[in-house]
Amino acid sequence: MFFTSDNAGPAHPKVMEALMAANQGYASGYGADAPMIEVRQMIRDIFEAPDAAVHLVATGTAANALTLATLSNPWETIFCSPMAHIHEDECNAPEFYTGGAKLTLVDTYDAKMTAPTLQAAILKEETRGVHGPQRGPVSITQATEKGTVYTVAELMALTKVAKSFGLKSHMDGARFTNALVALGCTAAEMTWKAGIDAVSFGGTKNGLLGVEACIFFDPAVSQQFELRRKRGAHLFSKHRYLSAQMHAYLTDGLWLNMARQANDACAHLIAGLEGVSDVQVLFSPQSNLVFFDAPRALHQKALAAGAQYYVMSGDPESGPDDEMLTGRLVCDWSADHGAIDRFIAHLKQ
Amino acid sequence: MFFTSDNAGPAHPKVMEALMAANQGYASGYGADAPMIEVRQMIRDIFEAPDAAVHLVATGTAANALTLATLSNPWETIFCSPMAHIHEDECNAPEFYTGGAKLTLVDTYDAKMTAPTLQAAILKEETRGVHGPQRGPVSITQATEKGTVYTVAELMALTKVAKSFGLKSHMDGARFTNALVALGCTAAEMTWKAGIDAVSFGGTKNGLLGVEACIFFDPAVSQQFELRRKRGAHLFSKHRYLSAQMHAYLTDGLWLNMARQANDACAHLIAGLEGVSDVQVLFSPQSNLVFFDAPRALHQKALAAGAQYYVMSGDPESGPDDEMLTGRLVCDWSADHGAIDRFIAHLKQ
Amino acid sequence: MFFTSDNAGPAHPKVMEALMAANQGYASGYGADAPMIEVRQMIRDIFEAPDAAVHLVATGTAANALTLATLSNPWETIFCSPMAHIHEDECNAPEFYTGGAKLTLVDTYDAKMTAPTLQAAILKEETRGVHGPQRGPVSITQATEKGTVYTVAELMALTKVAKSFGLKSHMDGARFTNALVALGCTAAEMTWKAGIDAVSFGGTKNGLLGVEACIFFDPAVSQQFELRRKRGAHLFSKHRYLSAQMHAYLTDGLWLNMARQANDACAHLIAGLEGVSDVQVLFSPQSNLVFFDAPRALHQKALAAGAQYYVMSGDPESGPDDEMLTGRLVCDWSADHGAIDRFIAHLKQ
Amino acid sequence: MFFTSDNAGPAHPKVMEALMAANQGYASGYGADAPMIEVRQMIRDIFEAPDAAVHLVATGTAANALTLATLSNPWETIFCSPMAHIHEDECNAPEFYTGGAKLTLVDTYDAKMTAPTLQAAILKEETRGVHGPQRGPVSITQATEKGTVYTVAELMALTKVAKSFGLKSHMDGARFTNALVALGCTAAEMTWKAGIDAVSFGGTKNGLLGVEACIFFDPAVSQQFELRRKRGAHLFSKHRYLSAQMHAYLTDGLWLNMARQANDACAHLIAGLEGVSDVQVLFSPQSNLVFFDAPRALHQKALAAGAQYYVMSGDPESGPDDEMLTGRLVCDWSADHGAIDRFIAHLKQ
Repeated sequence: MFFTSDNAGPAHPKVMEALMAANQGYASGYGADAPMIEVRQMIRDIFEAPDAAVHLVATGTAANALTLATLSNPWETIFCSPMAHIHEDECNAPEFYTGGAKLTLVDTYDAKMTAPTLQAAILKEETRGVHGPQRGPVSITQATEKGTVYTVAELMALTKVAKSFGLKSHMDGARFTNALVALGCTAAEMTWKAGIDAVSFGGTKNGLLGVEACIFFDPAVSQQFELRRKRGAHLFSKHRYLSAQMHAYLTDGLWLNMARQANDACAHLIAGLEGVSDVQVLFSPQSNLVFFDAPRALHQKALAAGAQYYVMSGDPESGPDDEMLTGRLVCDWSADHGAIDRFIAHLKQ
Repeated sequence: MFFTSDNAGPAHPKVMEALMAANQGYASGYGADAPMIEVRQMIRDIFEAPDAAVHLVATGTAANALTLATLSNPWETIFCSPMAHIHEDECNAPEFYTGGAKLTLVDTYDAKMTAPTLQAAILKEETRGVHGPQRGPVSITQATEKGTVYTVAELMALTKVAKSFGLKSHMDGARFTNALVALGCTAAEMTWKAGIDAVSFGGTKNGLLGVEACIFFDPAVSQQFELRRKRGAHLFSKHRYLSAQMHAYLTDGLWLNMARQANDACAHLIAGLEGVSDVQVLFSPQSNLVFFDAPRALHQKALAAGAQYYVMSGDPESGPDDEMLTGRLVCDWSADHGAIDRFIAHLKQ
Repeated sequence: MFFTSDNAGPAHPKVMEALMAANQGYASGYGADAPMIEVRQMIRDIFEAPDAAVHLVATGTAANALTLATLSNPWETIFCSPMAHIHEDECNAPEFYTGGAKLTLVDTYDAKMTAPTLQAAILKEETRGVHGPQRGPVSITQATEKGTVYTVAELMALTKVAKSFGLKSHMDGARFTNALVALGCTAAEMTWKAGIDAVSFGGTKNGLLGVEACIFFDPAVSQQFELRRKRGAHLFSKHRYLSAQMHAYLTDGLWLNMARQANDACAHLIAGLEGVSDVQVLFSPQSNLVFFDAPRALHQKALAAGAQYYVMSGDPESGPDDEMLTGRLVCDWSADHGAIDRFIAHLKQ
Repeated sequence: MFFTSDNAGPAHPKVMEALMAANQGYASGYGADAPMIEVRQMIRDIFEAPDAAVHLVATGTAANALTLATLSNPWETIFCSPMAHIHEDECNAPEFYTGGAKLTLVDTYDAKMTAPTLQAAILKEETRGVHGPQRGPVSITQATEKGTVYTVAELMALTKVAKSFGLKSHMDGARFTNALVALGCTAAEMTWKAGIDAVSFGGTKNGLLGVEACIFFDPAVSQQFELRRKRGAHLFSKHRYLSAQMHAYLTDGLWLNMARQANDACAHLIAGLEGVSDVQVLFSPQSNLVFFDAPRALHQKALAAGAQYYVMSGDPESGPDDEMLTGRLVCDWSADHGAIDRFIAHLKQ
């Protein structure tokens, strides 16, 4: 009954095998290893983007901060949701890597920005000449931090607004594949065909030890990105171990299979939650995590039974029994349906 | 005959086993995994420093830049050798992480700063009130980038100078263990007992996939370091894979054994080089890398025979046959004495 | 009928005389000029703060950004109003000078944060360990960007909240004196006695050419501030011209007199506005600027008659005649009551 | 007998008159004042550069740091002399404004870089791919910090080297006009015709209160510069007072006349020094400052007689009487030939 995070589960055995296999003899470092050439091609093929620049880093925050810095100037403001990981969970890494850019928070519905709320936020900035921050890129989390997923049409609407102001669009794809399999579209359809300029293509939350790809559909910024990565201390000397993970990830659809397993487990979990009286599922989750409201007493029961997850909105240990508190449950590829059933059973007791 | 770098060889099988073993079930992330508690204690024991702050990162540049940033202010200058990795090979990462500090280059003998050259460099700074940079920490690479090793007495002399100006001393220990086994002293003797305040304790060049420990003997800066690491995007969600590597490294003396193997191989290589006419060994190498001068023709012969290493001071492919060029040879734990013998044989033909 | 800004009017003749008088012979530079010693003492006397650190800069943005950087760490977030000059009108200068800190926007009434809204905003941050930004200083604009003034009790309530979280409080006093004379209290009462730790004490908007004092009631940070000022390129070699302005400002109550003139003119203007049908005065202005709503047609009439001021919420030139648009009117020390009367007369025609 | 610095003397009376004249009524702020349009045109005319971007700031460090930041990337290194003001006297302002670029020190003769030393320094950088800093702009101080002046041919040789590597050239012209009148060439000849891309055109050391112009011969970076200036807090609201100074400076050749007076005074001083036994004039000074060696006893005599200047290389108060110490003497436009004669007389006694 472990639902704390999709970065708390194990890496997939095939990824570990690939890591072992990569550990043979000498290999060139710093991204010049032979497997990286294959990885780059695999990603270009998957994204139907033969010219895309593709670079690997080891953390999602590095992927986001470096990619946004590449798309921004320090005197700009980046448009994102108030729940965005880049705003809430990166300890000012975007501000650090951009050299002091600002984040402008855009209103959301179901944790998703909309074309009108984005338009309104952009219109409010850069009305004061050089005095205010200048408009910078739009960052869209797909799937969102609340488990919802932008449709391709919704993405297109957002990037259309961005383009109308000459702004770039970035996708924080820490849970890219969870969104992709939820939508059932192609990687190209969910990105550059929908107007996205650059993607943080996550692997860590979906069965890798720690690898993310930064993908730029305009390769002109590739060298700049490489220099930013190096001076950010994110270029690995023994890069082969990053390449190997990503190679295994993209082989035989492992990335898609793991995301499907995570999403399916979450759907099972949601279905269970919906059958529990006193529980209210929040937002309209479609990927691998779900927020729900339940009375404190119910949280206490579940936690006492050994369930592990975050209670976000208050202390589950002290307060009125009937106060509604929000919990977050996350499923990764290794999530166990049996554990989900036991969790739901505890809630129903 | 692969002597390009000690970051080009494989990780030790025991490290890989530990990684596999760590890949079981769920684990808390972000450094809160159980093995990290053990790793912290192991390092404290090894360094005889029960209160030391210990944190892991995945690259040597991250270890150096984050540690120096923690010891510095942006208006200061860091004293280091002109060959220092932080000056030559980190693409301004120290300048980035410190928020714009400067590096002041100190004269060296055998790639080592001396107490008088350090004293002279420090005296030249901060003579202009707020106009010039203020004096900041001293960074000492042990073993040096040229393969030499500071004696404990030499380290003490440097840190004594630093302390006389109220400055902190940092050790860039990317090849810490190679130096340690060369000196045959304890980790405590080579660090805090010699006046060192903080260490980048390297593992990546000595048989790990990519882990370095940042050690502060004054734990007061621990929380500051953690925040710097997080906003630098160097905090791993699946931290267990860093912990596992370091745990295996420090178990049963693996770290010492690997460094000894690398040093022994290099000593074998140096002995061989000294028997080659036309070859001149540079500096006084004591650890796992050696610089040497040889005529272009000799480099060409070795490279043609399949040897791989950097020729630093000119193009080995074109120019006069008898022009002396400098080569760098590095041995890691997995270096093969047979390959060394073959390499020497090619040089002697 | 010039109401564009209080930084568009002339400097006071006495300030110009002081500047001329200062232009004699040689003087030490960089703040070591003799008049600066007097200025420092005058400010300490006025603020009843014998130990305060006092430094001069030439722009309000420099005063704010440098002072906040001195009170902050790069991984923190600064609490301020959404209308704060530091958020809206400094092109990310606070983010730049702090090295990448964030600003958290606090809800306001009449452009003033309240103890409960500040408390709520602070409580929402730093709930995620090292993942989110850490709580940083609170910045309070006095008088506010909308012309309202915090009472001493309101200031105390805010700083009490800040202190309860261990946070420092900064006052952006670009219009410090306008607020002071509105409240009729002492500078000490409006600052350190009310819990303020540091003040941007403005002169530029109140009759100087361009000088602000940065005042820290805890002088321990004085040297740090000086280094930040120097590396920010805000230390003037010919500092005497800053000292001379501030000296004249504080002599014979000129600063208070000019602020009173500006406030009185604005009160006269507000009284006039309140007599115009179709005009709605916004907020509860008490200092030297006033926002008001009026139909587009009325704005057009005023502008056509030669009035100069900003229309903030839409294009005064095109749109429905009866659409209400917000105008901003600012009075400086030199504001002309006759011009005000003519302006009101145009609105009433 | 005041020779401390050319930033310690008074502003020229005509500059003060212009300041008084500018203090009439209302004026648009932030560089939109009418006189700035004239100033921009005057500078374009003087430099024969009809498209140049021209912006004013108030300190020389701001001019240098902002201009270099506009020409650089944070992962680059700026080439300059070891005596460069940007290296020695700006407390890391270039590192701050560039976001962490490095400075590479180029060998000099008479405080001047030469084409070969510059070429050698550039060749040594960027030989390590993304690992080392990338090559950035060259910064040339004209006149140098030691009073020497690059000939136009020397400038051309330097910028030719820079261009051969695709690098931009910046001129730190804190004493631009002193060099210009020493050479007797045109401003165009000393800058863009000699391959210079951007100039810090100083006024502060040459009779203004505090104004420097930043001139870019390629105006494409103008908007970027403006945003950097604003977020650096160097945009003046009451900009008219900067414009007025620069306007007076450029009117009727005042700038040239003041520089000539300073240079002439210095030539008089040098001639005097050369007649003093035991005094050795250093470098080959051609502008308005001179370094000289003299025994401690002689410095003591001069200082005791009331002369004011910096002794750079040791404590004039204590040590052997016959130890040679270096002094620096600077003349500004207001330098008094009588005082110079008295100073020389004291040395000769």
